Amino acid sequence: MRDAYLIGAAQTDFGSFPDESYRSLFREAYEAAVETVPGGIEPADVDEAYIGMLSIGGRQIGLSAPAIAEHVGLSKVPCTRLENACAASGYAIRDAVQAVKSGMADVVVAGGTEIMNDLSSETLPYWLGVSGEMEWERMAGTTFAGVYAQIASAHMANYETTREQLSRVAVKSHRNGAMNPHAQLGFECSLEDAEEAPIIAHPLTLYHCCPTTDGAAVTIIASEDAAEEYTDRPIRIAGVGAASDSIGLFQRDSYTNLPAARTAADRAYEMAGVGPDDVDFAEVHDCFSIAEIVAYEDLRFCEQGKGGRLVEEGETALGGRIPVNTSGGLKSKGHPIGATGAGQVVEMFKQLRGEAGERQVEDAERGLAHNVGGSGGAASVHIFEGPEVKP
Amino acid sequence: MRDAYLIGAAQTDFGSFPDESYRSLFREAYEAAVETVPGGIEPADVDEAYIGMLSIGGRQIGLSAPAIAEHVGLSKVPCTRLENACAASGYAIRDAVQAVKSGMADVVVAGGTEIMNDLSSETLPYWLGVSGEMEWERMAGTTFAGVYAQIASAHMANYETTREQLSRVAVKSHRNGAMNPHAQLGFECSLEDAEEAPIIAHPLTLYHCCPTTDGAAVTIIASEDAAEEYTDRPIRIAGVGAASDSIGLFQRDSYTNLPAARTAADRAYEMAGVGPDDVDFAEVHDCFSIAEIVAYEDLRFCEQGKGGRLVEEGETALGGRIPVNTSGGLKSKGHPIGATGAGQVVEMFKQLRGEAGERQVEDAERGLAHNVGGSGGAASVHIFEGPEVKP
Repeated sequence: MRDAYLIGAAQTDFGSFPDESYRSLFREAYEAAVETVPGGIEPADVDEAYIGMLSIGGRQIGLSAPAIAEHVGLSKVPCTRLENACAASGYAIRDAVQAVKSGMADVVVAGGTEIMNDLSSETLPYWLGVSGEMEWERMAGTTFAGVYAQIASAHMANYETTREQLSRVAVKSHRNGAMNPHAQLGFECSLEDAEEAPIIAHPLTLYHCCPTTDGAAVTIIASEDAAEEYTDRPIRIAGVGAASDSIGLFQRDSYTNLPAARTAADRAYEMAGVGPDDVDFAEVHDCFSIAEIVAYEDLRFCEQGKGGRLVEEGETALGGRIPVNTSGGLKSKGHPIGATGAGQVVEMFKQLRGEAGERQVEDAERGLAHNVGGSGGAASVHIFEGPEVKP
Repeated sequence: MRDAYLIGAAQTDFGSFPDESYRSLFREAYEAAVETVPGGIEPADVDEAYIGMLSIGGRQIGLSAPAIAEHVGLSKVPCTRLENACAASGYAIRDAVQAVKSGMADVVVAGGTEIMNDLSSETLPYWLGVSGEMEWERMAGTTFAGVYAQIASAHMANYETTREQLSRVAVKSHRNGAMNPHAQLGFECSLEDAEEAPIIAHPLTLYHCCPTTDGAAVTIIASEDAAEEYTDRPIRIAGVGAASDSIGLFQRDSYTNLPAARTAADRAYEMAGVGPDDVDFAEVHDCFSIAEIVAYEDLRFCEQGKGGRLVEEGETALGGRIPVNTSGGLKSKGHPIGATGAGQVVEMFKQLRGEAGERQVEDAERGLAHNVGGSGGAASVHIFEGPEVKP
């Protein structure tokens, strides 16, 4: 079982781009990713492509992967669209790793793209809702904000988590995002801003929810031999884990954790031969602020129920014990569904190569990316090791 | 690079099932596939699942793979929905092979499911059309029947292919399908029936077009060690090939072949170390009768332009030199988009184990499955070898 390496990664700005398409954004990210590889990548060298995309709205719903591949000059390459809701491109990276490990591919493009802002505010909740449990959650009127509000309420009731702690997640994300030129909401927010914003779904305010985002992100994953040809600073993909679960929150035993994320993390830690204490920084799936607190616990950065305190004590801030969402996370950087998982890996790439600018984590050698579909129906966790770590 | 083996496979009846769902059909196929494995498969033994589904219409569009996995008792298993239009489950099998070869999985479920008949006849063409080139084909009014009619017209003009030859494809498919208890249109048709049926898109008549189908098909793919545990009659997946292409017909150099299918076939032949003459039978993607004739040529069962004659001379009939679509093909067995590629592999499984009943190909040792997305934007080709063939 040979290793897989991350050799290139880039993303577009995340934001609202009425003049762009799912294809044009992917192309921008692809070309930028190719530029991060010394000497570039020729289309003929790409063996396979996996593209995460929910493909909501009225654009190319079928065969969008070949349509994208052709648009970026990869016309003959076998390519597939993967859908696992918001975890689509986390799974694209998983499949790319398998393709490399299988020996069937040496260089694989794995990324994601989404256009969301061309949907009206009436239509968008419906199209986002298709990734929720249709029969008993969506058709009963529950939105994703509603589902995560239930998680937040249960967490508050069980563990004395406070709304202020949720707000502190948002403050931290925005502080980091303000240092990320690609962030959609790249400005700082105060605790008061977060606390006093309009309620979206009690207890979540506007600042506890991620925005609606257009964007794309692309990674290039290679075998060890190919990686050596292209770069002297390959990032090893040391751990890969994924799991699925019931997609409805009401179907699960607990409202305060996501079992799929726990299992995915356990599998990734086991494969990498490391534990949570060995991780220097992480990108986690904070579609809502409570999701980041739950992620701390699912990834075992702290005990169950202690996630709120972790952020309150600054442990997950830049300079803290384990900085989380240095990119700004889904909250500030943005959340273009199909591109989000690959976007997290772009941050892995930058941090582990020491190219994260003013948001650089000191001595970042091992990072973890945690991508969740829906409210925990699917999850993937990947662990990356910088060029300094010897396997 | 270890080998991957097909150890179980089954499908539901293909047809119109207003009381079934995408989940219930998948479950029926999954349970039947598990029954084809001596001793069965425990959910805990399944490492990964890939599910092909276009997911048209108003059902679970996001996270449908975890929803299906949970419904069949595979709740924790990492699972992904793959979309490559009508080639979705051909690609599911491709990814399953890679997962096994990667060493990350020993037992993988790969299948597909689709419900299409709950869409109205007004809505269906739109939802099928989403897999066609949206901007310049669909929005200009071209349907899939229209695209394949253009291919047929060009083939007739270039190679003196006749409409009677197209009809002979239908007659052959129905003759085979009448022997397949799972076929949607499991009745024979005469040359006159095919010739005199209403025109759908000139020159294609109703009998030159596949039906609208609900159905599911599931395969179980395993590593060599796992295969040995489960069965003494494993089918080796000897060749795997795939390619993509421009999704619009108008974007290509020729109207009379599908370059993605040619490339996919070349790659599969090369990996298996065999050529077209070594193939004993094939399932090809005959969404329209002309597509089967083009497939003969793309797979190099005959020279370019000679496909019409191949069927006319009975070479692809049961008992002929290379029987094609012994299952009845998409034409007679049916075409439930996401399930079609896996359904072809069910026929591989039956034929190579000598379990195809009255449609059994004599001395079937090596079979080929050819699955196409859209009008050639994606294609996958797999070559399977029965237990008698020594690698």
